[in-house]
Amino acid sequence: MSPPDLRPLLSPRSIAVIGASTQAHKIGGMPIRLLRDGGYRGALYPVHLHAAAVQGLKAYPSLAAIGSPVDLAIVAVPAAACEATLHELARAGTRAAIVFSAGFAETGADGEQRQDRLAAIAAAHGIALLGPNCLGAMNLREHVYATFSPVVLAGVPPPGRISMVSQSGAFGSYAFALAREARVGLRHWVSTGNEAGVQVADAIHWLAGDADTDVVLAYIEGSRDPPRLEAALAAAHDAGKPVAIIKVGLTAAGKRAARRHTGSDTGADAEYAALFDAHGVHRAQTIGELLRLGTTLSSMSAASRRRTAPSGVANALAVLSISGGVGIMMADRAEQIGLDLPPMPDAAAQRLLARVPFATATNPVDVTGQAIARPEVLADTLADLARCGTYGHVAAFVGNGAGVPALWKALQSCIEELQADAAAAPLLLSGIVLPAQRQWLEARGCLVFEEPADAVEAVAVLARATRSAR
Amino acid sequence: MSPPDLRPLLSPRSIAVIGASTQAHKIGGMPIRLLRDGGYRGALYPVHLHAAAVQGLKAYPSLAAIGSPVDLAIVAVPAAACEATLHELARAGTRAAIVFSAGFAETGADGEQRQDRLAAIAAAHGIALLGPNCLGAMNLREHVYATFSPVVLAGVPPPGRISMVSQSGAFGSYAFALAREARVGLRHWVSTGNEAGVQVADAIHWLAGDADTDVVLAYIEGSRDPPRLEAALAAAHDAGKPVAIIKVGLTAAGKRAARRHTGSDTGADAEYAALFDAHGVHRAQTIGELLRLGTTLSSMSAASRRRTAPSGVANALAVLSISGGVGIMMADRAEQIGLDLPPMPDAAAQRLLARVPFATATNPVDVTGQAIARPEVLADTLADLARCGTYGHVAAFVGNGAGVPALWKALQSCIEELQADAAAAPLLLSGIVLPAQRQWLEARGCLVFEEPADAVEAVAVLARATRSAR
Repeated sequence: MSPPDLRPLLSPRSIAVIGASTQAHKIGGMPIRLLRDGGYRGALYPVHLHAAAVQGLKAYPSLAAIGSPVDLAIVAVPAAACEATLHELARAGTRAAIVFSAGFAETGADGEQRQDRLAAIAAAHGIALLGPNCLGAMNLREHVYATFSPVVLAGVPPPGRISMVSQSGAFGSYAFALAREARVGLRHWVSTGNEAGVQVADAIHWLAGDADTDVVLAYIEGSRDPPRLEAALAAAHDAGKPVAIIKVGLTAAGKRAARRHTGSDTGADAEYAALFDAHGVHRAQTIGELLRLGTTLSSMSAASRRRTAPSGVANALAVLSISGGVGIMMADRAEQIGLDLPPMPDAAAQRLLARVPFATATNPVDVTGQAIARPEVLADTLADLARCGTYGHVAAFVGNGAGVPALWKALQSCIEELQADAAAAPLLLSGIVLPAQRQWLEARGCLVFEEPADAVEAVAVLARATRSAR
Repeated sequence: MSPPDLRPLLSPRSIAVIGASTQAHKIGGMPIRLLRDGGYRGALYPVHLHAAAVQGLKAYPSLAAIGSPVDLAIVAVPAAACEATLHELARAGTRAAIVFSAGFAETGADGEQRQDRLAAIAAAHGIALLGPNCLGAMNLREHVYATFSPVVLAGVPPPGRISMVSQSGAFGSYAFALAREARVGLRHWVSTGNEAGVQVADAIHWLAGDADTDVVLAYIEGSRDPPRLEAALAAAHDAGKPVAIIKVGLTAAGKRAARRHTGSDTGADAEYAALFDAHGVHRAQTIGELLRLGTTLSSMSAASRRRTAPSGVANALAVLSISGGVGIMMADRAEQIGLDLPPMPDAAAQRLLARVPFATATNPVDVTGQAIARPEVLADTLADLARCGTYGHVAAFVGNGAGVPALWKALQSCIEELQADAAAAPLLLSGIVLPAQRQWLEARGCLVFEEPADAVEAVAVLARATRSAR
């Protein structure tokens, strides 16, 4: 099973907007505004029956009148006109279409027939059809904002290597907004809507082969075609691309709601759970969790220069803290989620106690507030823990310490040294850092979380990903 | 059982710093810097054996030399000198002392004896003793920064009506920093350290009677005196002041770590659970959760002008969403945590369907993206749900909608109307809002959360608080 080719859809060299509007806030106007103002570098052709220009761009009365190849057509015409438009695309050789128009399966039996006809035309002519009734797609690196979601107007997340696929457009655009707030770097964003052509499964499958995507985040209510979803997840697993999914409809209330929303049969959760487990899929229940999974899993990729833990000790965590109290909280969480906390080796313990007699040299390791005045103690202990071979990961709570120049400097040297040591266990931090510090850390594959428990949970995610890697 | 009077400690008219340092970054220098620069309006007296001035303030060779009454003494002298200092306080009639000095019970048997002697002097002379080995206390409204924690230098949370008590100073100062980041309004902040005098329980007990505190957030490893903790929790419960606690040492790993950290016996979690349940204490496992509990519970107070749900329907939630997908997620979470989702009454359902035929008029209610173009549909449906008598709370997901001026305006009118209607169910929002919008909403007792699941969890917290109110 191979997925439809989404390159013309997500990386088009030219885009026509059919049903272009001179009013930027309308469904046929917004993508023109976003593409033009957002820095899209390909050719952009508004198609409008009468107007000579749309939002300052030369307009064309038809696709045929453009006279140049068009990779992607954005379709914003009434439902009844969509069929004719797809035929026009087929004649022009356009290989991808995003249909914003509503009035299809979501409106009843007539609409369903209309949608089936669209699907048939797309299939017959090899057109990758996204929608109908969808919010479109985006490619953040190439500034392809093929959407009418005004969420883009408030700003976009930094370009990154995490891609996002959502059956629900509103969910997708809200998750996009939260990614922007949390500075989570995104590559592609796809909303599949009624899924007459491209399903969430197809998008996952294609992204599994995308050289610029490291991790795929997805939202699904239910799969229309479970074998297709399984093939996609297997492809991602084989390609070493972690997938994290919010699958809703877990409860009776959620199932009823999903059936009313998109007619999705959310299925038995146990079946999805088995499918997800078989392919190492990570599950989230909140948007924040989904985004943290994205950040965490992308830190394992080659691109982030991060090593993964040796799988034999992946589950063994060293907790180091400048606060006894927070260390205890982290130990509680680690044990609750099934991580091991073996004590630190004797040699390292003696070394620490010789310098800070009131330190706790077991696990969690409490270097005490002394670390603020003597950052070399923190750095050396971190290095000892990362290098002793006992641990798969080291999670260190530094509180507000990154604001102390000497401590930050010692941390930086320590992280650079460990980065160069292929045998050292990966390090995660919890504390408050400045945006520039976060960037510096993430560029070196060092994750940082404000909430101490989140650092511990990230370790569990990484340990699981290490175990399930093929 | 009545708690020690903490007024001289938390609301002193005059403060002496004994062991004052001319260097602002030292333990005896930081509180002078923070109090002087932070806007403390009382008298501030550095006490220094030799210097005539400390950090620009006139200094005194002894407490007696000040010649005016001193409410609070901050003690930053070596451990061996603390006893003599406490005797000096007793002679001068100073009724509160914060002892920063380390070198007591945390260092072994000798230190423990030194600490017992301090405790005895304080008890004999009625001195409220905080510490030793603690980070001090703060009163944000009166700019009392009686701490040497540099966390204050990076800024403080807005003054509010939530007070925070922590056995661990480092935990406390990190939670303080996260409150600042999340703009959670704080009133008092107390770190109890070795607890020779004031225990976490005493602070909770005193805050239960503090007219400026609505909610108490606490961190404990274990109580040295469980009946004292019980009395404090009972007093808070009786006073209608919700208490939320992070109790660490839940697991074997955490218990071992707590025993090493402060010698705390974290006790059997079942006993704490029973104690907390009996007094309606809310529990958190992460700092983010603790702060959300603070914000959520403070919305119930008289000061926020928020009504509570009628207790008969407190557990019944109406979910309204502009996105089917997010509505399903919220329904899943609601069912998972034991809330009920009764369907919306017929009359309201018919009214909605007459205006938006493709809406889902059950529960979750999906008003669809139509709400963006026709905000009156959103507002009217919200009002119908809040007023129908079926629900204890209404949680509405508005996504990025608050950024649409017409929708925000409609929401504001709706909230003001419901605010004036004593019978209407309280409303909570999930969405992205600007800081000024958040302020406007919170001033009207309307909580807002970026994460949709957090809004649902807040409802469960409010329902529980409503049921347990005495």
